[in-house]
Amino acid sequence: MRGLNGRAALVAIAVAALIGGTILGRVTSGLGGGGLGEIAASRGLTADEAAGALKSFVAPGKYDEYVLLASGGHSGQVHFVGIPSLRLLKTVPVFTPESWAGYGQKADSGEAVLRGGSSTAKNNEQLTWGDTHHPALSETNGTYDGRWAYINDRANGRLAMIDLRDFKTKQIIDLPNMGTSHGGVFATPNTEYVHVSSMQPVPQTPNGYAPLEQYAEHFRGMSAWIAIDPATGRGDVARSFQIELPPYTQDLGDVGKKASAGFGFINSYNTEMSVGTADREGKPLEVGAAKNDYDFLHIIDWQKAQTVAATAGKTVLRNGMRVITLQTAIDDGLLYFAPEPRSPHGVDVSPDGNYIVVGGKLDPHATIYDIDMIKKAIADRNFSGRDRFGVPILKFEAVVAAQVELGAGPLHTQFDNKGNAFTSLFLESAVAKFTLGPKAGVAAGNAFKLVDKVDAHYNIGHLATTEGDTVSADGKYLVALNKWSIDRYPTLGTLKPQNMQLIDLSGEKMKVVAEAPVGYGEPHYAQIIKLDRLAKSLQVYPVGTDPLTFRPSTHATALGRQRIERSGTTVDVYMTVMRSHFAPDVVRVKKGDTVRFHLTSVETTADATHGFAIPGYNAQVSLDPGEVVSIEIKANTVGTFSFYCTEFCSALHLEMQGWLLVEP
Amino acid sequence: MRGLNGRAALVAIAVAALIGGTILGRVTSGLGGGGLGEIAASRGLTADEAAGALKSFVAPGKYDEYVLLASGGHSGQVHFVGIPSLRLLKTVPVFTPESWAGYGQKADSGEAVLRGGSSTAKNNEQLTWGDTHHPALSETNGTYDGRWAYINDRANGRLAMIDLRDFKTKQIIDLPNMGTSHGGVFATPNTEYVHVSSMQPVPQTPNGYAPLEQYAEHFRGMSAWIAIDPATGRGDVARSFQIELPPYTQDLGDVGKKASAGFGFINSYNTEMSVGTADREGKPLEVGAAKNDYDFLHIIDWQKAQTVAATAGKTVLRNGMRVITLQTAIDDGLLYFAPEPRSPHGVDVSPDGNYIVVGGKLDPHATIYDIDMIKKAIADRNFSGRDRFGVPILKFEAVVAAQVELGAGPLHTQFDNKGNAFTSLFLESAVAKFTLGPKAGVAAGNAFKLVDKVDAHYNIGHLATTEGDTVSADGKYLVALNKWSIDRYPTLGTLKPQNMQLIDLSGEKMKVVAEAPVGYGEPHYAQIIKLDRLAKSLQVYPVGTDPLTFRPSTHATALGRQRIERSGTTVDVYMTVMRSHFAPDVVRVKKGDTVRFHLTSVETTADATHGFAIPGYNAQVSLDPGEVVSIEIKANTVGTFSFYCTEFCSALHLEMQGWLLVEP
Repeated sequence: MRGLNGRAALVAIAVAALIGGTILGRVTSGLGGGGLGEIAASRGLTADEAAGALKSFVAPGKYDEYVLLASGGHSGQVHFVGIPSLRLLKTVPVFTPESWAGYGQKADSGEAVLRGGSSTAKNNEQLTWGDTHHPALSETNGTYDGRWAYINDRANGRLAMIDLRDFKTKQIIDLPNMGTSHGGVFATPNTEYVHVSSMQPVPQTPNGYAPLEQYAEHFRGMSAWIAIDPATGRGDVARSFQIELPPYTQDLGDVGKKASAGFGFINSYNTEMSVGTADREGKPLEVGAAKNDYDFLHIIDWQKAQTVAATAGKTVLRNGMRVITLQTAIDDGLLYFAPEPRSPHGVDVSPDGNYIVVGGKLDPHATIYDIDMIKKAIADRNFSGRDRFGVPILKFEAVVAAQVELGAGPLHTQFDNKGNAFTSLFLESAVAKFTLGPKAGVAAGNAFKLVDKVDAHYNIGHLATTEGDTVSADGKYLVALNKWSIDRYPTLGTLKPQNMQLIDLSGEKMKVVAEAPVGYGEPHYAQIIKLDRLAKSLQVYPVGTDPLTFRPSTHATALGRQRIERSGTTVDVYMTVMRSHFAPDVVRVKKGDTVRFHLTSVETTADATHGFAIPGYNAQVSLDPGEVVSIEIKANTVGTFSFYCTEFCSALHLEMQGWLLVEP
Repeated sequence: MRGLNGRAALVAIAVAALIGGTILGRVTSGLGGGGLGEIAASRGLTADEAAGALKSFVAPGKYDEYVLLASGGHSGQVHFVGIPSLRLLKTVPVFTPESWAGYGQKADSGEAVLRGGSSTAKNNEQLTWGDTHHPALSETNGTYDGRWAYINDRANGRLAMIDLRDFKTKQIIDLPNMGTSHGGVFATPNTEYVHVSSMQPVPQTPNGYAPLEQYAEHFRGMSAWIAIDPATGRGDVARSFQIELPPYTQDLGDVGKKASAGFGFINSYNTEMSVGTADREGKPLEVGAAKNDYDFLHIIDWQKAQTVAATAGKTVLRNGMRVITLQTAIDDGLLYFAPEPRSPHGVDVSPDGNYIVVGGKLDPHATIYDIDMIKKAIADRNFSGRDRFGVPILKFEAVVAAQVELGAGPLHTQFDNKGNAFTSLFLESAVAKFTLGPKAGVAAGNAFKLVDKVDAHYNIGHLATTEGDTVSADGKYLVALNKWSIDRYPTLGTLKPQNMQLIDLSGEKMKVVAEAPVGYGEPHYAQIIKLDRLAKSLQVYPVGTDPLTFRPSTHATALGRQRIERSGTTVDVYMTVMRSHFAPDVVRVKKGDTVRFHLTSVETTADATHGFAIPGYNAQVSLDPGEVVSIEIKANTVGTFSFYCTEFCSALHLEMQGWLLVEP
């Protein structure tokens, strides 16, 4: 022990003894690596930490059991993370250009998606940024089917679709009549619709403007139900509809399943309709918006609403979208409110669909609504009154099954398969585990009780359990998405990562097993899918595929048919790409020409990805095996530009280059 | 064992027995978590895999021992990864906008860096993309000092500097007289210069163009020595110089240290000067560039060159840069060649500076040059001839200490502190360990011998050992940067991640311990620094800091001094940002106004980061504690836009929003 200081030596000995290092070392001495206990001791791991290592490690060449799909917040992207290893498997660009994947760096498919998802009427310029918030995996019978993923743009009120065959963004819809969006993106149980609701209401006036003094009169929230094409997964605006909501700030949403199928739920806050210091009192928003004791859980009958939307004369067409006005929504019984404790945040439906759990944020309770009670209160017209816009308010005691005191700052709730719910406590930096009621299989005597708490570091926001948003939550792991990391990681600059923590749910007590920093975007919310449900993913495209449509590209070419065609000042280059050359490899054009490169990867081997970049021309394309991509440049700068392959593809990768010669 | 199928049960029992699970389980049963062996068995880990888990795991709240700085390839960014955990700690944007960090999404500092790093003369448009290749950490006395990091843009011939106080990119220099760059970025032992060399030569003609038929006459490579300001770390073009090189394709580079201090080394290939199918024979480049048996290791005396560059009349000023012409470089003894086996790739200098190791790529050997032999051959003018441009070629046998046969496709070499070298074998997908010579402390009888090999999956490119580019390489870990991952990870679409593998160097035999996918950019090359050398990193800025200069910002404001000033159609908004409000929170402007937001974070708490986004206006800013950021928009779209904080900052984060009202 010479060379170790006294305290470290004592700790090392104690740890080795505690976890049986010596004994294990002896019986495994034939293995060459020393015993597990000895290794743990040599690295200063406690028994708990060593157990965490073994519980979270995925060995080289083996696969994680689950994949977590996390939003990237204001990075504009989404991230796929292996569970239990917490390793970042892949970043997929959605709202923001990303050049590794060649998305929005002149490749036609990415450019088309980004351009198509940015309304020139609504935005000041073409958007190259979004704030991804709530991912929703597509479902069949309430279970993830591994086909598509959806995510909203909290900043600009948009919805994107990622195809899980190739993990690429195929569509962005810029939702009209909405500014920001927050209310989650949730797929109905058979992905008939994806729901997005607005956050900050905007004026429903012809020019989109109204003064704040006319807030109640002109501003409205929106609940948007985007119809999904069952063949392509794309949103179909023509079949979609929006429901007007009062100008409260609509917050998170969820959709019903099983017992509550056909319903949607949205929280709200600022039912005071404060506009911050523009209020008569001049108080900041966080004061003005916290005056009322109760805000309103919005209960929407989307199944009935789709019938109403399909009825002639029941909707108005506003900026290309069918809108059910607030008055029609009230008159036709599509919208009800239930009181919820002030400034709530999360609303989550249990796997069986019976319970709707609301996190209080400024209230220490989880408030648990019962769908049968809601249905009965609606049928009985058991109202405590109406809000100032005429929306009926169901009686609190008629719809709430229980309130469970959890601790400070309850936000979001997830579920397991044993009737338990798990709620994040933001202010307390903890996860609370509590039981649901008899309809979730819990004995009456044990129902609605806090059973465990575990610390999370720090400021936990959302959390996700394995398959926790589906009818088949399996209760194996929970991932805490912690907003601050403070001192959990080395200081690498003033901008700190967020922190993911893996919590083992297999025992009676929850247990933090491992953690990983998120220094590449905010993982605002996440869903966790069993890996084997992603079996539809492609290894390669058939050669000549347009990735946007999965059909043969009209710009494809083949070996022996490469060519350069000039028509006036437009030059079309039909090029094949394979290890290790571009053909043609010399392209001569004149200054001022428009040059269109149509690149066909003729590779059929998985992972034989190439890139294509033109120095000085700001172009970078990723070409997966079989893919066809076009790029267009205006050759205004004279010179010799050596285009090259940006993906290390073979021993002769460096030689995979050619010349774009722009002659004066 | 009921419930397990027969084979799984047998495996579980065998594994438990092998690693002593039962015994450990017994002695640790009081710990509540079961024994380590039992946990490993329950997760199907072999003894080796369980050892890997314990060797690579970093427990919650503890820190990695090292930080790996990896380029992100065509993502344009760099990545900081913890070692041994392989967790991605942070992505730092460099050449490509990135909105999580608010870089290039209208924030003035990022915009200024990107704009300043894109020459309008050289490029067809402002560049928003780069291909980061070779990072270089700054050094003092040949050891990393944790002050700055540099990285080149392989696509566009640029150099960027990241300040390791706040881990932000402070400067990009668009290097004139160069198209692409590849030859590494390496800091001299006291960071006097950072060296970048060109890859594909370009014409040194007034308009930058010459036909390929005049390749030998007009095209030239460049070795650029960018002088570093010792106070700020920024490149100083006025004190920098370039040395013209023949139009071969210059590849990787390194700089000398200790015994070889004052020298630089660059590999080359395509000394045949093939221009692909534009050649008379019409053969592709990979054929045309592999005709010669030998290419040329470039040996540059940079210490002498800086004196020459400072001598009146010895340089020409070309596009703002002092250039030492090829003829002057030859005449003044600044440039020598040594033959190296055909199409080499890596060149790496050993920690003591005595040996320069070249990987053959198409040759199974590492070729090891000796700096004393090089110096003697230069002094003796021991030339085998001159190339067609007149550069003296040192005799191969006069400068080579040894060739060691390693296997198929040797590329890059790293070092430990025991006289060993580690070379990646691309074609064999392996790492070879071999001994250097007596000057590295190896007994003569053991010198220059292959001693071990370990498999890497798959297609290893670069590799990095802990502090392996410095005089104080410590031989603890090696990270293999594998180009393909093929089947190592679940199929998440057609674009697959690359693969990092952690190899333990502590024993006689190398051992793969863990691996992690890289699905966020290509980690082309990496350096590994001890964490404690990064101690200069800031937690927060002093309130009111301009992050570009680290000085008080002229746009800063303070609590109580917030204001909106109008001058004609320009509106300046001096806003403070703190939990949980923006002040002012309502900004009224007219359509057509230019609006400049000057945001001061008055936070002093580490990790109290805020964001500021304007929906529809494509603006997203990250405000670290104390930081001042300005953004400018042209308010052309009428409407009500609720700007908001994009970083979850407190329980009232959602209420942290305000209104930009653009009146008609």
